[in-house]
Amino acid sequence: MPEFLELLPPTEALAFFLQNLPQNLIVAETIETEQALNRVTAGDIVSPEDLPSFSRSTMDGYAVQSMDTFGASDALPAYLSLVGEVPMGGQPSFILQPTQAALIHTGGMLPEGADAVVILEHTQVIRPGEIEVMRAVAAGENLIYAGEDLIKGEVIIQKGSHLRPAEIGGLMAVGILQVKAVRQPTVGIISSGDEIINPEECPKPGQVRDINSYSLAALIRQSGAIPHFYGIIPDWREALSETLKIAHRECDMVVITAGSSASTRDLTAGVIQELGKPGVLIHGVNIRPGKPTILAVCNDKAVIGLPGNPVSALVIANLFVRPVINRLLGIKHSQIEPSVQARLTTNIASQTGREDWMPVHLIMGPEGYQADPIFYKSNMIFTLVRANGLVRIPAPANGISAGEIVTVVLF
Amino acid sequence: MPEFLELLPPTEALAFFLQNLPQNLIVAETIETEQALNRVTAGDIVSPEDLPSFSRSTMDGYAVQSMDTFGASDALPAYLSLVGEVPMGGQPSFILQPTQAALIHTGGMLPEGADAVVILEHTQVIRPGEIEVMRAVAAGENLIYAGEDLIKGEVIIQKGSHLRPAEIGGLMAVGILQVKAVRQPTVGIISSGDEIINPEECPKPGQVRDINSYSLAALIRQSGAIPHFYGIIPDWREALSETLKIAHRECDMVVITAGSSASTRDLTAGVIQELGKPGVLIHGVNIRPGKPTILAVCNDKAVIGLPGNPVSALVIANLFVRPVINRLLGIKHSQIEPSVQARLTTNIASQTGREDWMPVHLIMGPEGYQADPIFYKSNMIFTLVRANGLVRIPAPANGISAGEIVTVVLF
Repeated sequence: MPEFLELLPPTEALAFFLQNLPQNLIVAETIETEQALNRVTAGDIVSPEDLPSFSRSTMDGYAVQSMDTFGASDALPAYLSLVGEVPMGGQPSFILQPTQAALIHTGGMLPEGADAVVILEHTQVIRPGEIEVMRAVAAGENLIYAGEDLIKGEVIIQKGSHLRPAEIGGLMAVGILQVKAVRQPTVGIISSGDEIINPEECPKPGQVRDINSYSLAALIRQSGAIPHFYGIIPDWREALSETLKIAHRECDMVVITAGSSASTRDLTAGVIQELGKPGVLIHGVNIRPGKPTILAVCNDKAVIGLPGNPVSALVIANLFVRPVINRLLGIKHSQIEPSVQARLTTNIASQTGREDWMPVHLIMGPEGYQADPIFYKSNMIFTLVRANGLVRIPAPANGISAGEIVTVVLF
Repeated sequence: MPEFLELLPPTEALAFFLQNLPQNLIVAETIETEQALNRVTAGDIVSPEDLPSFSRSTMDGYAVQSMDTFGASDALPAYLSLVGEVPMGGQPSFILQPTQAALIHTGGMLPEGADAVVILEHTQVIRPGEIEVMRAVAAGENLIYAGEDLIKGEVIIQKGSHLRPAEIGGLMAVGILQVKAVRQPTVGIISSGDEIINPEECPKPGQVRDINSYSLAALIRQSGAIPHFYGIIPDWREALSETLKIAHRECDMVVITAGSSASTRDLTAGVIQELGKPGVLIHGVNIRPGKPTILAVCNDKAVIGLPGNPVSALVIANLFVRPVINRLLGIKHSQIEPSVQARLTTNIASQTGREDWMPVHLIMGPEGYQADPIFYKSNMIFTLVRANGLVRIPAPANGISAGEIVTVVLF
């Protein structure tokens, strides 16, 4: 495990890491559809019925037999006799015969015998029981057929899909009140470092409060997993090893923020290596910030060593922890990363051959968003508080010039 | 309140609506920072201390007096005597004198007397107690000064900000374990329509299950508010009026999905109008889908009548309900709408003079995202299940051509 000998670019590092993680480890649980927002489906969901279950009007108007309206115009209207009104929420008590029409409201059930709806604006009541139709309609016009939205047995939501408001509504539409969702994976969080103290304590000279446990826990929650805290462990091999073993046994995945110095990073990598096979796959990624990232798989579970620097830890967690959680959630479709296009306000320099991620602050200008780079020193956590998103500077580039349009990944 | 006489475009309708809603109605509550993800700050948050509280090294190396390294190079190194090692998490026990150096790790406290750190790679131990420095450093190099991230009394998070993982971490960094957050507003949901039944019931001919209560509740949760269900009310003036009064009294805002026919929409508008002053401000917006939207303010509370069509209801809720929730949450900064750029695969036609929103399905192609329009009939809820986002077709356009780059608003 020599450090930083061959640094992979982040995309390749992630792909290699994911290849070494098991597929299809998901565990399903049954939950109420009403409470299922943001959860992920554990299997394909099949419609138990046709939707709509009956042919419905999509407009206010008259149900008719379309052939009775052929050639109808303002000059030469068709005359139809009014046979009744379709009650909302009920079945019409009549069968529509040729030359008959029935008043129907949006969403009303098409009477038997009718094959189209002529909208109210194209009709006129000439006397009680008789209407003029001034426009021809084709069969199927202004209505939605039974089963046109979906048919019984159709897969309506695929396995590995996020449930959004539209899906929650769609499931209710076909009476699916409970769904099989993927159990939320648990992620153990360990903070290491002799200088780290609990946030409720008052730091003595040389001490700093734990930031990473909390920012990472929030990111893990945001990603649909459940964080478990394993506390702050001093840079002491036995203590770290003991805690890591417990977290690894109890959780689906472990994230450990190593100390920032080379010696504590080596300590962390060594302890992870002993946790299980294959062990540390990647130690060091060709990225800034976040070079000292450790990616390991120990007995089929992901163990990620993040840099101690809170800015690096959060940027790297976005790039590596989130995709592993997606894998644990069984998310099938590649995620669409929310982003905006913006015009860069200031030149950004970057080292050729290394992928850089630059925090930016977005300002809405008269011609769209402007992205203001936030230059920062290592360890300035408030850098990310001031930022709306990150701009990726690809490895081959030596920077991005002011005025260029960049994609800002929101976080 | 004549319907659809003067239809405002959605942006103007929203602006007029928001102008008529009270400002600064927020109620604060104290919550644990650790649990504050996605909550909104009720006031400016001020740092109680400097961060970092001491000057820290950002690299592994040696703390030095920078003037001792002036002119140092590989050919002509500076020789410094090693005075000790800075303990992690502790205060150095020595004061650095001229021509001295102290081993320091990333994050370690800069000893008194030192003003820079020379990184390990630019040094060499020549014998115990003596090092060579091969590179000059300037004062301040490779360290972060006390208070450089933020100073005591500085506003670190403004009123009306969302708390993201970075903010949660930042608050912990300065020991703020509890924050004043805006109480989550409550939104009453009423579904109306004689044809609507509870999803657990089996629809008889002409009946359909309630979709909107659940898709809207999910959207309301997603927006940071709390939905309250007031059930399904038949199209009967007294029943609607009674339920609306209760919801209006108990909640911060009410959303009612009116029936789809003109007569039930008028009924809904009439009942809302009696609820309080000024009443219905807008009845009908120049948009598709969602023209029959009702925007009302009754005794300082927003009441929104959404179309009964589930697709329209969700699109309109995105455009009108979400911004009102943002107002109730006191969100100060204009929201950055997550979106992606995509190339349209098929022509979309649109009526000039009306703003259209077209659902699209995104496909990642070799040259970025492609947006496939989803053509649909009114009332096909699974249209939105199949969609990743919406494309706005501005009022002046009569469509968008295949091959054009469009902004897809994700939902």
